[in-house]
Amino acid sequence: MEIIREPERMQALALRLRREGKRVGLVPTMGALHAGHLSLLEHVRRDCDVIVVSIFVNPIQFGPGEDLERYPRDLEGDAEKLREVGCHVVFAPDVGSVYRPGARTRVIVEELEDVLCGASRPGHFRGVATIVTKLFHLVQPHVAVFGQKDAQQAILLQRMTRDLDFPVELRIAPIVRDPDGLALSSRNAYLDAQQRSEALLLQESLRSAYRLVDAGERDAEILRRHVREHLSSGKQLRIDYVDLVDAQTLRPLRRLDGRALLLLAAWVGKTRLIDNLALEVRHNEVREVALEHIPGEETR
Amino acid sequence: MEIIREPERMQALALRLRREGKRVGLVPTMGALHAGHLSLLEHVRRDCDVIVVSIFVNPIQFGPGEDLERYPRDLEGDAEKLREVGCHVVFAPDVGSVYRPGARTRVIVEELEDVLCGASRPGHFRGVATIVTKLFHLVQPHVAVFGQKDAQQAILLQRMTRDLDFPVELRIAPIVRDPDGLALSSRNAYLDAQQRSEALLLQESLRSAYRLVDAGERDAEILRRHVREHLSSGKQLRIDYVDLVDAQTLRPLRRLDGRALLLLAAWVGKTRLIDNLALEVRHNEVREVALEHIPGEETR
Repeated sequence: MEIIREPERMQALALRLRREGKRVGLVPTMGALHAGHLSLLEHVRRDCDVIVVSIFVNPIQFGPGEDLERYPRDLEGDAEKLREVGCHVVFAPDVGSVYRPGARTRVIVEELEDVLCGASRPGHFRGVATIVTKLFHLVQPHVAVFGQKDAQQAILLQRMTRDLDFPVELRIAPIVRDPDGLALSSRNAYLDAQQRSEALLLQESLRSAYRLVDAGERDAEILRRHVREHLSSGKQLRIDYVDLVDAQTLRPLRRLDGRALLLLAAWVGKTRLIDNLALEVRHNEVREVALEHIPGEETR
Repeated sequence: MEIIREPERMQALALRLRREGKRVGLVPTMGALHAGHLSLLEHVRRDCDVIVVSIFVNPIQFGPGEDLERYPRDLEGDAEKLREVGCHVVFAPDVGSVYRPGARTRVIVEELEDVLCGASRPGHFRGVATIVTKLFHLVQPHVAVFGQKDAQQAILLQRMTRDLDFPVELRIAPIVRDPDGLALSSRNAYLDAQQRSEALLLQESLRSAYRLVDAGERDAEILRRHVREHLSSGKQLRIDYVDLVDAQTLRPLRRLDGRALLLLAAWVGKTRLIDNLALEVRHNEVREVALEHIPGEETR
């Protein structure tokens, strides 16, 4: 396994691999890797020759007062984990080599960037779209994988990839959870025992709403309210948003019909956590579904 | 020479050429080709195996009330000219295949997009940056050439190319002029004889300011005023802006020292025309210079 720090070296390798006809799979991360990250590699392993995992805590996707400085960093531990799961290249550049003085280009995805997490984290998603564009250019992947835990991010990046004609197939991998149901997140490390227990309410509230849909409820506002009420039992929990939206446009739904995304964000203590559930109602049946992937160069 | 209409086919060819190790040069145009466009090919011919000229009147870079509908279009005539100068591939997609329903991604270059031409054409430069990003992904060029006539565009795209790590070397080719000094533009076709004669004031006012610099003038405001006064003799001419700016940041200069860009836009009748002059003052000497190119994958 090779560790590359310089963007120039990464791109030179990527362009060489393209010329050699090698298929490259990219797993972009901010490090502090957990089993959720590691599961992403399985989604590129079967049809890629080279797996590149990028590790970069991207400053421009953090707002003022957010946790940029204390975001967990452990390159040595991450590299150890990645070596064990058969990663080929770790791309871990310095901030200064990624954002040079005078840089002022941003990629924006109108409408999708301003809602939900984007409403409470202004500038977050243009920061994400910009770094992913740069990573796509530096790593030249055929396939890139993102986790469904960050559902809005995955949907926005799908839109971006399609709109800008990147020759990249974007895959969305399912959420990985601890046995008690908590979605894995590097930020879970911030939680004390009491907070961790309250954090379980996120997943529980989604499951509870799912059972309501299964019992026939189709009114989106009733479902949103149900989730809010469920969450309200957490003493250290403060809701950021709960919404039920169209999974492509992220526009709020009035009634459940077809595919939908139920998603939420909440602060537990000072830690902001997110979770979601994609579902489909058809012929009066409901089932949990995976967010769809967008085809890349071979199949467009 | 091959004419390709479908973005999918263009990208498939581009990716194949990359795998085969061929060097691709891209000349993006909006068609209605004149000698200025054709000169651009000479800047990629020497070191590229395949020259791709794109022809696409990009709707998202036109504002309401601008000349999108009447912008001259002549694909057959353009193809004829390109065949004669040894173009290999013409990429001329339809609007509907380039912008699919639901597209909402834009590339923005903060600060650079809002000034000068960007101030009077809101949204213009994000339209340009977005289509060029798409063209770079569809054509996968090693080198792309833009004309210095659109100096702000060239500078903004250089910034974008560098900021987003495109593996593309961006070259800027000098302005091509008619024998009387008028910078070639597809929009010159809109001018009647009287207007064409007044349009010569653009280039004349720049040359006149240059002579003033040569005689020792260094005060930017005096130079701007000089150009404005020179232009004021045109009866059908209305100034949009005249400015003297830093050639990288596009920020107005107070005094000439080092490299600078003197540029202007004016309506002659209903036709908006632009022109510019890049110069360098060093050791009390002034000389006209070319806008610098930004190195691409081989040299970064």
